[in-house]
Amino acid sequence: MAEKSLSGQVQQKKASGWAARDTCGVLSPFDFYRRVTGEKDVTIKVLYCGICRSDLHMLKNDWGISTYPLVPGHEVIGVVTEVGSKVEKFKVGDKVGAGFLVGSCHSCHNCANNFENYCPKLIGIDSGVEYYDGMKTYGGYSDIIVVDEHFTVRIPDSLPLDACAPMLCAGISVYSPLRSHGLDKPGMHVGVVGLGGLGHMAVKFAKAMGVKVTVISTSPSKKKDAIERLGADTFLFSHDPDEMQSAVSTLDGIIDTVTGFHPLLPLLGLLKYNGKLVIVGGPDKLELPVPPLLFGAKAVVGCFVGGMKETQDMLNFAAEHNITADIETISIDNANTALERLEKGDVRYRFVIDVGNTLKSSS
Amino acid sequence: MAEKSLSGQVQQKKASGWAARDTCGVLSPFDFYRRVTGEKDVTIKVLYCGICRSDLHMLKNDWGISTYPLVPGHEVIGVVTEVGSKVEKFKVGDKVGAGFLVGSCHSCHNCANNFENYCPKLIGIDSGVEYYDGMKTYGGYSDIIVVDEHFTVRIPDSLPLDACAPMLCAGISVYSPLRSHGLDKPGMHVGVVGLGGLGHMAVKFAKAMGVKVTVISTSPSKKKDAIERLGADTFLFSHDPDEMQSAVSTLDGIIDTVTGFHPLLPLLGLLKYNGKLVIVGGPDKLELPVPPLLFGAKAVVGCFVGGMKETQDMLNFAAEHNITADIETISIDNANTALERLEKGDVRYRFVIDVGNTLKSSS
Repeated sequence: MAEKSLSGQVQQKKASGWAARDTCGVLSPFDFYRRVTGEKDVTIKVLYCGICRSDLHMLKNDWGISTYPLVPGHEVIGVVTEVGSKVEKFKVGDKVGAGFLVGSCHSCHNCANNFENYCPKLIGIDSGVEYYDGMKTYGGYSDIIVVDEHFTVRIPDSLPLDACAPMLCAGISVYSPLRSHGLDKPGMHVGVVGLGGLGHMAVKFAKAMGVKVTVISTSPSKKKDAIERLGADTFLFSHDPDEMQSAVSTLDGIIDTVTGFHPLLPLLGLLKYNGKLVIVGGPDKLELPVPPLLFGAKAVVGCFVGGMKETQDMLNFAAEHNITADIETISIDNANTALERLEKGDVRYRFVIDVGNTLKSSS
Repeated sequence: MAEKSLSGQVQQKKASGWAARDTCGVLSPFDFYRRVTGEKDVTIKVLYCGICRSDLHMLKNDWGISTYPLVPGHEVIGVVTEVGSKVEKFKVGDKVGAGFLVGSCHSCHNCANNFENYCPKLIGIDSGVEYYDGMKTYGGYSDIIVVDEHFTVRIPDSLPLDACAPMLCAGISVYSPLRSHGLDKPGMHVGVVGLGGLGHMAVKFAKAMGVKVTVISTSPSKKKDAIERLGADTFLFSHDPDEMQSAVSTLDGIIDTVTGFHPLLPLLGLLKYNGKLVIVGGPDKLELPVPPLLFGAKAVVGCFVGGMKETQDMLNFAAEHNITADIETISIDNANTALERLEKGDVRYRFVIDVGNTLKSSS
């Protein structure tokens, strides 16, 4: 599969995927090149790839950072097909995953402390930036992907591969703040705002940690599912002032997964003294009410996916507690339809593309 | 001095102060009653009282919580003239201080942990609310004040009484977040936004803690004073994008003392990964840029004065390091003029009223 690039310099291998060509964001088949397996790389045959809401934003250049053609996908599950000469952790045939992170400097304070996700030189798997070899990165809506073993995680045997894909972004994005902000102690009470891909994972992880969970949602129709199936303890319809008032000052922390603009004041009111509202998504700007911060010593903090050690820990914890994502599996041919449905919130709770069985490889 | 109240029930004593009668906020002499010394109370002859910017807001009912007549003043220094039968810590003649806190529930989690400042039943010295005995609270622009000994602090002998007054609010408001947010470790680098009453105390305390200090200000004219006299290490003119850019990702934390609306984006940019922007004042709302929080794991937190133990610790630390406020002492007759000047930022850095020598007592 390896061959010379068009420029004749870098060793490359053919890959096939689905890409958007412009800000319309419509996906269609796309052939491209990936680097050959470097000495620290693993090459992964992609089996499944989750569809994250941020794929929508990247496809349409909502954040002004997209470059086209753009192959999305940062919830990648697959099997190792080739390993570099210096790879230590993986062998051909291993079931592995790759999330958003595929590169970092390995020398900064954050890298040294297993927080590669906050490395200033972070490289995203599907952000279309240049990797160290000068090649553009392409995501997991594709047949193969080449990843440095440092950014590859092992999928525990007990986890189903399809329902495991969303763990690589949705899962770690909520697992990390629960751990890093100390919201993982039995007896604590945590709120989860928004019951989507991230929110439903937050409920599962928090419950497995022994934490009391309240789901806060604008969709009262999700109450039954939140409590009866996901195991949340209570549910607040955020547009009902009485319900919200009944829960004032009850939460130790909140994981806020809402991506659009939303008022923080009612959420801050739910926090106890010293409580933390952890934003894991959100729009470019929110309105910050100051008095609740002052008089309750409350904090609004941000959290962005997780480091590689934390991601492996999350997968191991998931295996131990039998946690996976709730998914709807689709073929790559239905990816555009799935993205439209995702935009309308019509999925419980994550689409996963069956890449292995439905994406035709041209190579 | 004790006598029956007009209602004939509660034992009260006459007091004289200066009060605003309405939202014009103009102060004039005002005679009123205080409770007699309860068994856990100390009565304090007020010698000095600092003028805090929040006095301006309360006088004009900017926050919609003022009741008139309103006697401001929560940076009170004086001498004990009477003690209740069960007072244990103080005796007549002791030099003492009282700040914003004069009451709390003594039973909640925060009270139990020396954070009475976050007690839900907190009572403010000059907030004009009802004290437990049903009497309205009046602040320190007055000849005497009666305070529960729990909310009274001892002024170390070495501290000058006038320059010590602002410590009771301006001092503790910045000392507390430096301590509680771990920004007090030698080798750390802290930003202080706004060089006023609170800001100049923050510089002094942080330097005494061994912390590197950068002042961030909209007034380049303050650079010389910040560095040469207060001891700050560096100064950033916040309207100069180049200066601000030069300091990106350098600060472990920021103490933000600015009371008006101001952009948080440039300040968040100055923080290192995991850095904290601590708001100790601020307007009702600020605009919160979300991406810097996410991608830097940064936090915006609030802090409101400090608990009583922390306030005493602050005074002891100040005595140990010879720290006092920079003040301009005025007579009570000049309080209105001083408030006008304060509104224009024309003070370096705190007005203190010489209550003891200039306020005429009618009793």
